[in-house]
Amino acid sequence: MQVSIPKKNLSEALSALERIVPSRSSNAALTHLKVSSTDRGLALSGTNLEIDLEQHVEAQIVDPDHFVVPAHLFAQITKSLPGELVELHHQGTELTVASGGSTFKLQTGDLGAYPELTFPSHTDFTLDAKEFARSIASVRYAAAAEEFRAIFRGVQLELSTSRSRLVATDGFRLAYRDFKASSSKEARKLVVPARNADEIIRVLRDGEVKLTVHQGTLSLVTDRVRMNAKLMDGELPDYERVIPKTSSVTIQMDSAALREAVARVAVVADKLSNNKVEFIVAGGRLQLVAESDYGRAQDVLDVQQHGSEPAITIGFRAKQLTEALSPVDGEVSIGLGLNAPAVFKPVSDTGYLAIVNPLRV
Amino acid sequence: MQVSIPKKNLSEALSALERIVPSRSSNAALTHLKVSSTDRGLALSGTNLEIDLEQHVEAQIVDPDHFVVPAHLFAQITKSLPGELVELHHQGTELTVASGGSTFKLQTGDLGAYPELTFPSHTDFTLDAKEFARSIASVRYAAAAEEFRAIFRGVQLELSTSRSRLVATDGFRLAYRDFKASSSKEARKLVVPARNADEIIRVLRDGEVKLTVHQGTLSLVTDRVRMNAKLMDGELPDYERVIPKTSSVTIQMDSAALREAVARVAVVADKLSNNKVEFIVAGGRLQLVAESDYGRAQDVLDVQQHGSEPAITIGFRAKQLTEALSPVDGEVSIGLGLNAPAVFKPVSDTGYLAIVNPLRV
Repeated sequence: MQVSIPKKNLSEALSALERIVPSRSSNAALTHLKVSSTDRGLALSGTNLEIDLEQHVEAQIVDPDHFVVPAHLFAQITKSLPGELVELHHQGTELTVASGGSTFKLQTGDLGAYPELTFPSHTDFTLDAKEFARSIASVRYAAAAEEFRAIFRGVQLELSTSRSRLVATDGFRLAYRDFKASSSKEARKLVVPARNADEIIRVLRDGEVKLTVHQGTLSLVTDRVRMNAKLMDGELPDYERVIPKTSSVTIQMDSAALREAVARVAVVADKLSNNKVEFIVAGGRLQLVAESDYGRAQDVLDVQQHGSEPAITIGFRAKQLTEALSPVDGEVSIGLGLNAPAVFKPVSDTGYLAIVNPLRV
Repeated sequence: MQVSIPKKNLSEALSALERIVPSRSSNAALTHLKVSSTDRGLALSGTNLEIDLEQHVEAQIVDPDHFVVPAHLFAQITKSLPGELVELHHQGTELTVASGGSTFKLQTGDLGAYPELTFPSHTDFTLDAKEFARSIASVRYAAAAEEFRAIFRGVQLELSTSRSRLVATDGFRLAYRDFKASSSKEARKLVVPARNADEIIRVLRDGEVKLTVHQGTLSLVTDRVRMNAKLMDGELPDYERVIPKTSSVTIQMDSAALREAVARVAVVADKLSNNKVEFIVAGGRLQLVAESDYGRAQDVLDVQQHGSEPAITIGFRAKQLTEALSPVDGEVSIGLGLNAPAVFKPVSDTGYLAIVNPLRV
């Protein structure tokens, strides 16, 4: 097989595969990627058994064929090539990679030992790729770290005829984002492990993504990429009931100004008390206070204040505030109540909601 | 004391001190920095007992005074401040740092427990700060890592009436750079530990630097900074005798093209054979070859070739080639000989020279 392919396109596809394909494995076949000719160019595919990824790159091909090659070495070589066009030549057990004045000869691997990767041919539903990736990215922080119950370490995709939602929670805080896509099929809930969700965010760009669920796997197909991502068993417990319906105090302000003020006072916050940042709301002002043995920090922001209580004092973990605010642009509305979770909503975008539990006083 | 100071200037000075001052120490006083009023503004000083550093920042001061404050906390707070101007207020054991809507209150430390830092008032010789820093930076890579003889872990500064030189070697390779400055005093050799050399590179910028040697310490004074850096005992063994006077083959080419070609073929180089890259010179062409179990890489560059031998094949460690070439701009001349160290010189700048020992065949 003789292939002529722009370096930039090949290099981008290999970068995505480098993240998936293990650099070491007890099964040496898995450290390889498979290069196949298609009617449109090259298909490059790899797997870590949790995620299968196939990237399509346009290329000129003579004598269509397929082979496997060490993934990371091939990717590193491609990145380092001097020319703009790469020539691949596969013959026997040798792949020659040439560009500019450089020539690399690589030993190809055992094609027979490479696992068969299959992608579904039908589509269950279709989403806007960018919107879907953005929605996952805006809730993913709320998924639990390793030490929590398994189901909390995933991001739940809810599909129904009325709306779709992505939601993540670690049992103490929660984030969801609703988006427009609806499924013509029956309502369903899928939980994608957070790590796999990260890879989905990375590979999706523009255009449409076609989703299919089959045998505990979510498959995603765009015109450039095909991916299978393992799903988790089960679904998140009913989280709607922990979202407060009303708040005794609601404040509204610029989200960027608040994020910066939280980061600032958190410098002094005491690690032993969970990096606590206190919100003291009264008279249309939000005062942020943090302290430790080393000192005390205070920041004041003007806010729009509404609600039945004239004043409230309530403490949060600095990092949880920063994360809840991270997907918010422009003005944010925060609903507060004593011993009640705080509710964060962007004023202009009704799709996103985050709740954060306060620290006990 | 009441101080008004631009955030940018204070933050820059604190960043330099953050690198020196330990964040933890069995002697808690060392984690602090001292803030003193001078006739020009503030002097901020800190030490790790290997290096003392004092930064000068212009400021408006009312009620001159001095105090010590936790260095890293003060630096972090300053970085995070929202305004362009910072107000410091020191009273009793409390420092108030205010800017924009933010107010921080820090506990100051024990001034009596802080070590006395003294800087010399006379000058032994004066150098161009930028040229001096650049010269250290271009040879520092050749100093030995931890496992070698102590003296090889330093950078030697040689001062004489005719020329000045910076030189570093690990016993296997060597780099020096000559520069114009000359000393009116007797010729002398000082060895600066490589770590201290790194800090000297970082603090020097424009203008002049005044150097003084006193009691095993090199002191550097600019109009912005004063630094004491501990020196090593002894001096480098006579290295001139290992520099080949003649070469059987000399090649000349663009240094950037060679650096890139070395980096490229090194991707395939075998770690077990020291990442060997072979130079095969013949007929006005340099062929670079590297190989391992995974494959073989080859790159060809046109060169100007001179010398008594028509061809030569010689192997080097990829990293040592890259480092020897790193300070070279434009054309480089490389002198080669069988079983002889290779000599690297920039064609346009006669100050720099590097030698690299070849690998045994």
